[in-house]
Amino acid sequence: MKLIIGNKNYSSWSMRPWLLLSHHGLPFEEVRIPLDQDDTHTTLAQYTEAGKVPVLQDGDLTVWDSLAICEYISEHYLEGRGWPGSVRARAEARSCSAEMHSGFPEIRGQLPMNCRASQRHVPLGEDLAAEVARMDRIWSRYRGIYAGAGPWLFGEFSIADCMFAPVASRFDTYGINLSETASQYMQCLLSHEKVLEWFEQARVEPETIEMAEVGI
Amino acid sequence: MKLIIGNKNYSSWSMRPWLLLSHHGLPFEEVRIPLDQDDTHTTLAQYTEAGKVPVLQDGDLTVWDSLAICEYISEHYLEGRGWPGSVRARAEARSCSAEMHSGFPEIRGQLPMNCRASQRHVPLGEDLAAEVARMDRIWSRYRGIYAGAGPWLFGEFSIADCMFAPVASRFDTYGINLSETASQYMQCLLSHEKVLEWFEQARVEPETIEMAEVGI
Ligand SMILES: N[C@@H](CCC(=O)N[C@@H](CS)C(=O)NCC(=O)O)C(=O)O
Ligand SMILES: N[C@@H](CCC(=O)N[C@@H](CS)C(=O)NCC(=O)O)C(=O)O
Repeated sequence: MKLIIGNKNYSSWSMRPWLLLSHHGLPFEEVRIPLDQDDTHTTLAQYTEAGKVPVLQDGDLTVWDSLAICEYISEHYLEGRGWPGSVRARAEARSCSAEMHSGFPEIRGQLPMNCRASQRHVPLGEDLAAEVARMDRIWSRYRGIYAGAGPWLFGEFSIADCMFAPVASRFDTYGINLSETASQYMQCLLSHEKVLEWFEQARVEPETIEMAEVGI
Repeated sequence: MKLIIGNKNYSSWSMRPWLLLSHHGLPFEEVRIPLDQDDTHTTLAQYTEAGKVPVLQDGDLTVWDSLAICEYISEHYLEGRGWPGSVRARAEARSCSAEMHSGFPEIRGQLPMNCRASQRHVPLGEDLAAEVARMDRIWSRYRGIYAGAGPWLFGEFSIADCMFAPVASRFDTYGINLSETASQYMQCLLSHEKVLEWFEQARVEPETIEMAEVGI
């Protein structure tokens, strides 16, 4: 398998399937295409008509979009173990993940992922605060319910954790305050061995994307 | 099962799981919560913490978000037949669906679903035109490839068709021009028996949402 990703420092969508593959030790080759460069679009077009990373090539099959790639990996390589085992937890994990995939525009726009930055401050307007509160509620609720089964959002590690790892990075960069249970979950994500590896690799990337450098 | 939806005329996300359930003849009770009314939020809060429709209640399990509900129905009630059967078509159908779920902000914002309106015109700026072109490409490409297996996007009817049915309604309302293969697919969606039933029911709804009445 070949996973095409953007900058590790900025590409939150790329981090999701990378983390799923890495967590499960599935072998893959990584192709990094720095975003926002003169040749980004031409290079991307060699891999995907959708014009966006991440993209997975598996032999002559192309799968794109972070969530679809995760579903493909789960179904094809993990016998469905990308999601929790019980019907209830699977449905809830997919609900949270799909809510993340289609929502949270303020978090996405106002708190861009910037793994190597820290102690940045951004004003917390009403809409952004409401999204942060919703995120806190998701994290504290499910981590509370499934705590007996393991430290991840639904006990065992799942695709939901891959969806929320980039959010943990954002909240860490911008010093967002969370409830106790939600913070514990965030710390758990931030200390995942493979997440730390992603951050290490982000730190040594040479490119800077001005638009994503927000906060003071 | 109980499916909580918004106005049939305007709620594009609600239409997706409604169509999947209806197409497969799965029995469900429908709860309609008109959006944008004084009591919408309070009523919605009785069903979902996410504050959005659609929501599915199955016994004491709550599943929310249109895509997650479709995955749940496919896995739990259709033995996976919500998606095409082959590994390749499944991956491609999930890719298109997840791209739809997280993308196309211009189509969503500038061409709101309004089933009973027709011959509305909206200026086609550059960003909107690029999204329409991408949609056309998805429709013509996969409908071309899988035409031998049936008239739907991946041959047999799938969740991808549920994701694109509201887009067909939008394109019809605003008279968007498409390539021949893409138009044929759009007509196929617009003449689905259950889609027609949805439109009928939209027509008799009493509410009007001013914000969604765009175009001249
Ligand atoms: N729905 C997509 C969204 C991916 C996306 O927006 N990727 C951004 C970077 S993180 C991108 O590739 N942008 C490239 C560009 O616009 O030039 C997914 O989940 O994979
Ligand atoms: N990710 C959600 C999005 C659903 C959504 O945005 N629903 C809108 C109506 S179509 C809504 O419920 N809005 C209610 C409100 O904001 O008051 C899904 O796919 O289910």
